[in-house]
Amino acid sequence: MYRLAFIGFGVVGQGLAEILLEKKNVLKDCYGFEYLVVAVSDFNKGSAYSPDGLDLSTLLELAKQNKISEYPGARTGLDALNTIKETNADIVLEATYTDIETGEPAYSHFKAALESGKHLVTTNKGPTTLFFRELSDLAAKKDVRFLFEGTVLSGTPALNLCHLCLAGNDVTEIRGILNGTTNFILTNMEKGKSYEEALKEAQELGYAEAKPDADVEGWDALAKVVILAKSVMGADIGVGDVDRSGITGIKLQDIEQAKKEGKRWKLIGKVTKEGGSVRASVRPEKVELTDPLASVGGATNALTFVTDLMGEVTIVGAGAGKKETGFSLLSDLLSIHRMS
Amino acid sequence: MYRLAFIGFGVVGQGLAEILLEKKNVLKDCYGFEYLVVAVSDFNKGSAYSPDGLDLSTLLELAKQNKISEYPGARTGLDALNTIKETNADIVLEATYTDIETGEPAYSHFKAALESGKHLVTTNKGPTTLFFRELSDLAAKKDVRFLFEGTVLSGTPALNLCHLCLAGNDVTEIRGILNGTTNFILTNMEKGKSYEEALKEAQELGYAEAKPDADVEGWDALAKVVILAKSVMGADIGVGDVDRSGITGIKLQDIEQAKKEGKRWKLIGKVTKEGGSVRASVRPEKVELTDPLASVGGATNALTFVTDLMGEVTIVGAGAGKKETGFSLLSDLLSIHRMS
Repeated sequence: MYRLAFIGFGVVGQGLAEILLEKKNVLKDCYGFEYLVVAVSDFNKGSAYSPDGLDLSTLLELAKQNKISEYPGARTGLDALNTIKETNADIVLEATYTDIETGEPAYSHFKAALESGKHLVTTNKGPTTLFFRELSDLAAKKDVRFLFEGTVLSGTPALNLCHLCLAGNDVTEIRGILNGTTNFILTNMEKGKSYEEALKEAQELGYAEAKPDADVEGWDALAKVVILAKSVMGADIGVGDVDRSGITGIKLQDIEQAKKEGKRWKLIGKVTKEGGSVRASVRPEKVELTDPLASVGGATNALTFVTDLMGEVTIVGAGAGKKETGFSLLSDLLSIHRMS
Repeated sequence: MYRLAFIGFGVVGQGLAEILLEKKNVLKDCYGFEYLVVAVSDFNKGSAYSPDGLDLSTLLELAKQNKISEYPGARTGLDALNTIKETNADIVLEATYTDIETGEPAYSHFKAALESGKHLVTTNKGPTTLFFRELSDLAAKKDVRFLFEGTVLSGTPALNLCHLCLAGNDVTEIRGILNGTTNFILTNMEKGKSYEEALKEAQELGYAEAKPDADVEGWDALAKVVILAKSVMGADIGVGDVDRSGITGIKLQDIEQAKKEGKRWKLIGKVTKEGGSVRASVRPEKVELTDPLASVGGATNALTFVTDLMGEVTIVGAGAGKKETGFSLLSDLLSIHRMS
């Protein structure tokens, strides 16, 4: 029986909570996985703690109204750090917002969880990108897990695909479509829309932010490239080592020119291992139509692993979504269960 | 330290042996996996057994000359069944030839291994297709593993992708390109070749047999569909329950017509769960160009899993090959190691 604490209870946390609720019996019967949610702490929605477990339906209902602190009978008012340190949770689920410059406040949450000897499962790219080595070492020292499948391709197997299913392979290159917003824009430009029109549609559909730089300038993809380089290839690279350019310079005539060449523009994140060093980039590339990445349209993501034994293995799937990102956390929970 | 016995030491067995030899240190250092090959028995190449381990380089050299029985100092002359029963191996690697009608001789090997309380790892579709339930029950009763990643998509993660990385999902449909030979033929027909020309080229390249029925009539894909239906969906279906047709009826004008419709012919193996029942088929289908399966050309394979939480997840990779199928066995060995 695992005791879970949610730090951040927005779309992703609620996504997992709904899955845990819906699949309680399946998880127990098929995988022998049993859980209690003992604590939730969300900066806006409030906090609740009960060492004997909180009811998920009640929590989800209260979360809608930002009234988690009104959970009947629970201890309330614990902030994130106190929830991590003072509750009886043995797994911390960190799903607060990503800050790719400082990693905070999640970085403090991560450290507190690991230092308290609690497993840490997260979808937060900030600290995972910036402080991967330090956090991995801390987890190893404390003999707990630090898992973050959801930071790349949401719940579509990327890190687990590599670590579990491709174990034994030497991965020499990873390249892929790591950002759904830019892929949606490029796919729409293929249909004849201008960059501005395609961006506007992405914003209307909620794929892109009002200030779309994190996506269109390649920062989001860059974070994922760094996580792949560090966690799959053990590379010692930082954000500043990635050759980055976004899609804002791509014009309709570039799209047309690529079509004539039998190619298609994609924003490709790439890490290549050569000898002892690793090169990483995020930039628009003209991909051959026969490349499995070429046919990946809309907001879908995809990754190709180039390996010594299996050649190229490509996975295609969702890169975002409430259920999909919620599932990434479940996937890591089941990994912890499998390893224990 | 695992003690391994190879039953059948052809291309696949040797493929694994080469990987084990080359990666001995990596497997130990990165995964804590250590092995001894204690026995090999091959109907044509001879047999050797040494409880303290055989040297893999020597074995591979002797195998080339069909002289395994001349291994210096080893006990020789044990047939497959005696090798399984009388040696100190704790994992049996079964890679003899596939007979999809009787499952023999592999079926007897499988039963002997499991009854002896040894883990069974195989690439053999015969018994896995025909006697899955019985063999799974026997493995469970004896508390050993029966693993067969290589029966579908060779070492490209298919069963493990589902069981490890997508665990927690309900898989409602699986569809894919499960046979490289027919996909190679169809891809060449797209380039304007007739079926007969494309088949001849596949035969010249060693993709297709002189008698190509197992591939072109869909039998090979059918076996894989049955394995997926049984092992992923727990379906109780047999070979005769699959609606099967091959690619021999596809003409160049069909290919052209599909192009005009913005589609492409693929031999699609499919299993669909609806309510309590499962429907399975192998037949040529016109796939939309936007489908990830459409861009899978040549001898490459691909599978799409339709799931409740993750939507569609597609994996693309090799479906055959010495190293690739050899790796599928390694992948299962590492699974046994992870579970123990």
